[in-house]
Amino acid sequence: MTQQDKRNSWRKRAEDTAARKEAAAPLYVKGKEVLAKDTVALLEAVIRPFDIINIEGNNQKQADFLAECLNKVDRGKIHDLHMVQSAVPLPAHLDLFENGIAKKLDFAFGGPQAGRVAKFIANGKIELGAIHTYLELFGRYFLDLTPRVSLVCAYKADRKGNLYTGFNTEDTPAIVEATKFREGIVIAQVNEIVDELPRVDIPGDWVDAVIQSPKPFFIEPLFTRDPALVTDSQILLAMMCLKGIYAEYGVSSMNHGIGFLTSAIELILPTYGLELGLKGKCCTHMILNPHPTMIPAIEEGWVDTIHCFGGELGMEDYVASRPDVFFVGPDGSLRSNRAFAQTAGHYAIDMFIGGTLQIDKYGNSSTATAGRVAGFGGAPNMGCDAKGRRHPTDAWLKCGQELPSLERDIGNLPRGKRLVVQGVETFGEGRAPVFVDELDAWKLARDADLPIPPVMIYGDDLTHIVTEEGIAYLNRCKDMEARMAAIRAVAGFTDIGLAAKPEETRALREAGIVKTVSDLGINPARANRDLLAAKSMRDLVTWSGGLYNPPARFRNW
Amino acid sequence: MTQQDKRNSWRKRAEDTAARKEAAAPLYVKGKEVLAKDTVALLEAVIRPFDIINIEGNNQKQADFLAECLNKVDRGKIHDLHMVQSAVPLPAHLDLFENGIAKKLDFAFGGPQAGRVAKFIANGKIELGAIHTYLELFGRYFLDLTPRVSLVCAYKADRKGNLYTGFNTEDTPAIVEATKFREGIVIAQVNEIVDELPRVDIPGDWVDAVIQSPKPFFIEPLFTRDPALVTDSQILLAMMCLKGIYAEYGVSSMNHGIGFLTSAIELILPTYGLELGLKGKCCTHMILNPHPTMIPAIEEGWVDTIHCFGGELGMEDYVASRPDVFFVGPDGSLRSNRAFAQTAGHYAIDMFIGGTLQIDKYGNSSTATAGRVAGFGGAPNMGCDAKGRRHPTDAWLKCGQELPSLERDIGNLPRGKRLVVQGVETFGEGRAPVFVDELDAWKLARDADLPIPPVMIYGDDLTHIVTEEGIAYLNRCKDMEARMAAIRAVAGFTDIGLAAKPEETRALREAGIVKTVSDLGINPARANRDLLAAKSMRDLVTWSGGLYNPPARFRNW
Repeated sequence: MTQQDKRNSWRKRAEDTAARKEAAAPLYVKGKEVLAKDTVALLEAVIRPFDIINIEGNNQKQADFLAECLNKVDRGKIHDLHMVQSAVPLPAHLDLFENGIAKKLDFAFGGPQAGRVAKFIANGKIELGAIHTYLELFGRYFLDLTPRVSLVCAYKADRKGNLYTGFNTEDTPAIVEATKFREGIVIAQVNEIVDELPRVDIPGDWVDAVIQSPKPFFIEPLFTRDPALVTDSQILLAMMCLKGIYAEYGVSSMNHGIGFLTSAIELILPTYGLELGLKGKCCTHMILNPHPTMIPAIEEGWVDTIHCFGGELGMEDYVASRPDVFFVGPDGSLRSNRAFAQTAGHYAIDMFIGGTLQIDKYGNSSTATAGRVAGFGGAPNMGCDAKGRRHPTDAWLKCGQELPSLERDIGNLPRGKRLVVQGVETFGEGRAPVFVDELDAWKLARDADLPIPPVMIYGDDLTHIVTEEGIAYLNRCKDMEARMAAIRAVAGFTDIGLAAKPEETRALREAGIVKTVSDLGINPARANRDLLAAKSMRDLVTWSGGLYNPPARFRNW
Repeated sequence: MTQQDKRNSWRKRAEDTAARKEAAAPLYVKGKEVLAKDTVALLEAVIRPFDIINIEGNNQKQADFLAECLNKVDRGKIHDLHMVQSAVPLPAHLDLFENGIAKKLDFAFGGPQAGRVAKFIANGKIELGAIHTYLELFGRYFLDLTPRVSLVCAYKADRKGNLYTGFNTEDTPAIVEATKFREGIVIAQVNEIVDELPRVDIPGDWVDAVIQSPKPFFIEPLFTRDPALVTDSQILLAMMCLKGIYAEYGVSSMNHGIGFLTSAIELILPTYGLELGLKGKCCTHMILNPHPTMIPAIEEGWVDTIHCFGGELGMEDYVASRPDVFFVGPDGSLRSNRAFAQTAGHYAIDMFIGGTLQIDKYGNSSTATAGRVAGFGGAPNMGCDAKGRRHPTDAWLKCGQELPSLERDIGNLPRGKRLVVQGVETFGEGRAPVFVDELDAWKLARDADLPIPPVMIYGDDLTHIVTEEGIAYLNRCKDMEARMAAIRAVAGFTDIGLAAKPEETRALREAGIVKTVSDLGINPARANRDLLAAKSMRDLVTWSGGLYNPPARFRNW
């Protein structure tokens, strides 16, 4: 082989890409614009069997038009695609497997399609690569799961291919960079093609084709919780969290998971939180989507900074009007970015707090249930001890100092630990016990032939469990026996909880490893909706000075 | 306060930025161009006392001209700056503290200035925030350490502010995004202002001013190792690594740390690695700067993908000619990106292998030594068990299956573990013992008043130690006692090693927890330079077909 031949053989991807783009060339109308009606033809021109394909779509914005068009390609020409994508929440995502166009799936979050994912794995329609956390999957885009073609989503484009992703930038930069700089092809559906963009989020060089979709992309208001639905029980848990954890550790930076407990916490910051003297000390720095239930605390001056994974429908004007708090561009609209928000969520925050469906007797938890391959989104990335972290904060150091087991792991060295908190009522949805002997994830692993059960948060990462029975300070347990006893002590009337021994629980309370509502000095009679700074969606709108514009389904006025 | 007043009070940063930019307005000559001679005036216009300031500079490219200009500002006007930056390798970075312009420092890597950093902390010239790993610091840019003004570095700019960072994109996207989207100001020094860029790496909207510096930015060839300097002892360690770890676990994806051991490994892949049958199985996917010593293995077809943190001087043409392997843009040059490379380095690779200066009896290691606050760069991020990882690979599962202590942590659940390997000769530079009773990091912490000693890799993250005495498979140890015994067994004639008990070592060898060179079936007589695929810089140039162009100081022909 001559040197020249040898050199040419290092350009296979580039040459292949050039051939595909040449096949697509007749479809361009002006600059990088392709008409919506030619989308299927474009996909047939640039996609080949066995390609690694990314369809953008997280739990919020969705490249839904491109997903639908991909279902319409000639399956004689295009088949056995390997889909790598953050989420598969749309029917169209699973239809690709039903239709024989796609075969393999690597993803992070299943959402409403979780049942279909499980079924397709069982009947061989999906060959499952793995379930990831978002940032982990982004990492693999730059190593061994680089998309050959990516189908992304933006608000606007110009004909040079520049994209405006604005409020919902989300995953786009990570997907596009990985694809385009490994000789791949990037196609964007946009709501509008314009001459002048408000700002450039993705440079035109990085995009191969832009298509104005027939209707705006689908977007889900996933982080909107109606204060009217917050229960007294959730308010009690919220009070326990604030007094027993936020105040106890002085947690200034954090992420709040999805769910009503953290909404309740947000809504009592300006009332109970203020009373506890937490203003200016807790919740000053957050990695968080623009939660409407944060509006009262923001308005009362609690928050210094919020960086967002994505946007939230209806919060556009409010966020744009609070540029001292949110990351807002020179054009006046939010720039979200899931990769950087997850990076900060892994390394910069002191606490992750959220809920779960099941916790086993060792403290491992999962939202996977039999028959549903749901995935965990960003939770494992934030709900774990970031072992590469090296900067100390008071909350992190205190959580680490309380670990009696540290010497077993690293000898005489001190080290901090991330606070990872799960707040649950002992019986969850449908009165199912949250505390279980064995996670349903085991059954799921057997059924779907996974090498290990899909766990959301491992027991050695979990530091605190909060239930209506009390707080278990797992980080204060000297060994697995003590941890299991602390879990039993707060597990209520579940089978796990019924196995608790009164004298053991008493000893744990005396040692400060378990604290009940009364140990915490909380009057449960105060746990009612009077404590909420906003009691309804309308109240949130009022707090926002009319800037928050809830989606229609959340309006009852 | 009226609603309008209230709303205005949420724009303090934006208003302050507008005032600063107005003060700078007379300095612009055309578009966003400011002349080099006006740089000090520009900095005085846009920087205020106590600002958080970022000067771009990692261990490679440096915004050196801007750093020098910042030293020339009127310290009556500008003082007490809080510097947040990846690295402080240039004298100018420390001069800022000497000159009373800067006061506080948050960073990740000290390099050649490590001694001065320690001295300045001791005498109160530097108030140390914290030492970070790169990705951790990037995360904090989006939360609580957002730069008010960033001084960055690019090859080229146009007058709209678009930047071409090309081969050495490195940290620029992370710094610029955090700064600009929190109402901050971004100033770029560039080697050249042009009308047309090869490609856009940073959109012009995100940049406030561009300055053509009087000379090109400084850049260090940090990852170039001359094969002529590789010793037989390093070749023996490299053989042990390949046979006892790479082959044993089937490690396909990894990062190689800086140093001669990993260069030796790279150089024997096409010889000893081939003999072991590792081609196509090991080193197929790497997160790595463009190491010149990887050229032979790449040319022999070992590598599928390499994604780079940054560039490496002299490797530009070679990398550009291997776009099937490296991430190369449509313009034909590499796009590096430290944030994404570290993300993949944390979550997507199965192994981190590198060296260190000291390992204590528990297995904790540090490159910090008394009198030098060095920092660890990216090592802690890759040299730790990524607890948020959820995708399984064979190597990760095997490493986890071997852990007898897993049940203690998470009950009956299985879980994998990242391979973290340190390869050292038992006596290092200046014949100092690498194995020590107590890390110098303890003394450093006392002297510099750090809350905890700065540890590079903690013992519970470290899975393997390789020395000339053998490999200690720490992941196979059931408890701290066993781990300490395994460390003693490979610690040679250091005090730690001399405490090893022969019968204990024999039992560890029988259990496969320690393997000597003979246990591994390696003939030490073969450990010599004949095994290197390239024996000199010249050989590397030849392997590259003349595409690699070593910096002058590495040429002796």
